[in-house]
Amino acid sequence: MCLLFAVYWMQYWRGGFAWDGSIHMFNWHPVLMVSGMVVLYGAASLVYRLPQSWVGPKLPWKLLHAALHLMAFILTVVGLVAVFQFHSHSNIAHLYSLHSWLGITTVILFACQWFLGFAVFLLPWASLWLRSLLKPIHVFFGASILSLSLASVISGINEKLFFSLKNATKPYASLPSEAVFANCIGLLVVAFGLLVLYVLLASSWKRPEPGILTDRQPLLHDGE
Amino acid sequence: MCLLFAVYWMQYWRGGFAWDGSIHMFNWHPVLMVSGMVVLYGAASLVYRLPQSWVGPKLPWKLLHAALHLMAFILTVVGLVAVFQFHSHSNIAHLYSLHSWLGITTVILFACQWFLGFAVFLLPWASLWLRSLLKPIHVFFGASILSLSLASVISGINEKLFFSLKNATKPYASLPSEAVFANCIGLLVVAFGLLVLYVLLASSWKRPEPGILTDRQPLLHDGE
Repeated sequence: MCLLFAVYWMQYWRGGFAWDGSIHMFNWHPVLMVSGMVVLYGAASLVYRLPQSWVGPKLPWKLLHAALHLMAFILTVVGLVAVFQFHSHSNIAHLYSLHSWLGITTVILFACQWFLGFAVFLLPWASLWLRSLLKPIHVFFGASILSLSLASVISGINEKLFFSLKNATKPYASLPSEAVFANCIGLLVVAFGLLVLYVLLASSWKRPEPGILTDRQPLLHDGE
Repeated sequence: MCLLFAVYWMQYWRGGFAWDGSIHMFNWHPVLMVSGMVVLYGAASLVYRLPQSWVGPKLPWKLLHAALHLMAFILTVVGLVAVFQFHSHSNIAHLYSLHSWLGITTVILFACQWFLGFAVFLLPWASLWLRSLLKPIHVFFGASILSLSLASVISGINEKLFFSLKNATKPYASLPSEAVFANCIGLLVVAFGLLVLYVLLASSWKRPEPGILTDRQPLLHDGE
């Protein structure tokens, strides 16, 4: 729904999509950032909360977790290309607003998180000790990056509405239907993000530690 | 530092403070929201992470936790009064931007969280079973409200800079020193919030369950 609503906002009120440096190229930015940094990122985060992942070999689930996050990262980078090319084409400065500062920080943290996770949890060199040391940090930063994405999306929707309704017959302050719709996208994204964080952090839907269901995977003892 | 920087921003670039419905009354809004919903809220959340709170009677720490959160809530309400009176005085619509929708949702959730926490964890009627059922939910919503505050603060600083640098000789896009300074306040608030969330959720600085250090408080068995 977050994704469909973002597409509908851009298609119905903002003139649809293109890849030509115009404002229609910008329209890919909100859609791709919500797809990548929120929806797919959230889904990828919850792989180990599926009961199917709690038994049997862990490696396929690790590969799925890494692959989904890589797809999320690729969508994110394409979403950044859309806004950078639009800015270059329209002679707008890059990376000046707090939205952009926070957003780019979030994407850089995501890249670091992915590479560190790949190096420590997928490649076979890291010791059990290192993995269990880094696991809670990996989970915490994963959740933090999603929180920062929510803050970036909220500030981005807010800023976009101020821009595009500035000289409208019904400005943002008079709450035209576009503003109500896009504000609701913001709240929907927040609700989705909190639901993901709840399942990730507060629920008991976690893979049991080895020894409870199976003793056969000592190297994957990190349990996450 | 979050608080001092917010005061300095409003004092040095935005003309200082007043309580007269003018733009100088608005200036209390960012300062009080950062003080209440971020700094004091964060400090109040971490009461049970002080090693001093891990031994001895728990009631004084509960009272401190509730009292600090009540002070945070009062600062927040005064911060809302500042912006509502400024809007009324200047004929600006209330509660139209996504910043305001998210912000007011956050404050309402905070009020619900405080009253539920007071009713269940401070008043003596609730059973041990109910308390241990609600404790993880209380902690999760406490952390969520702080995350939503961060998103509200980020979107608020972003929006304020677009407003106040709109017709400036150096607009926001040219990154005048005020914009750099206020963007840094945003990142500082995020860093503070993540640090609080880390100590709250991911660290091992938690009060041990009863039985480890003391067996004398069966009614306070909820351990948080």
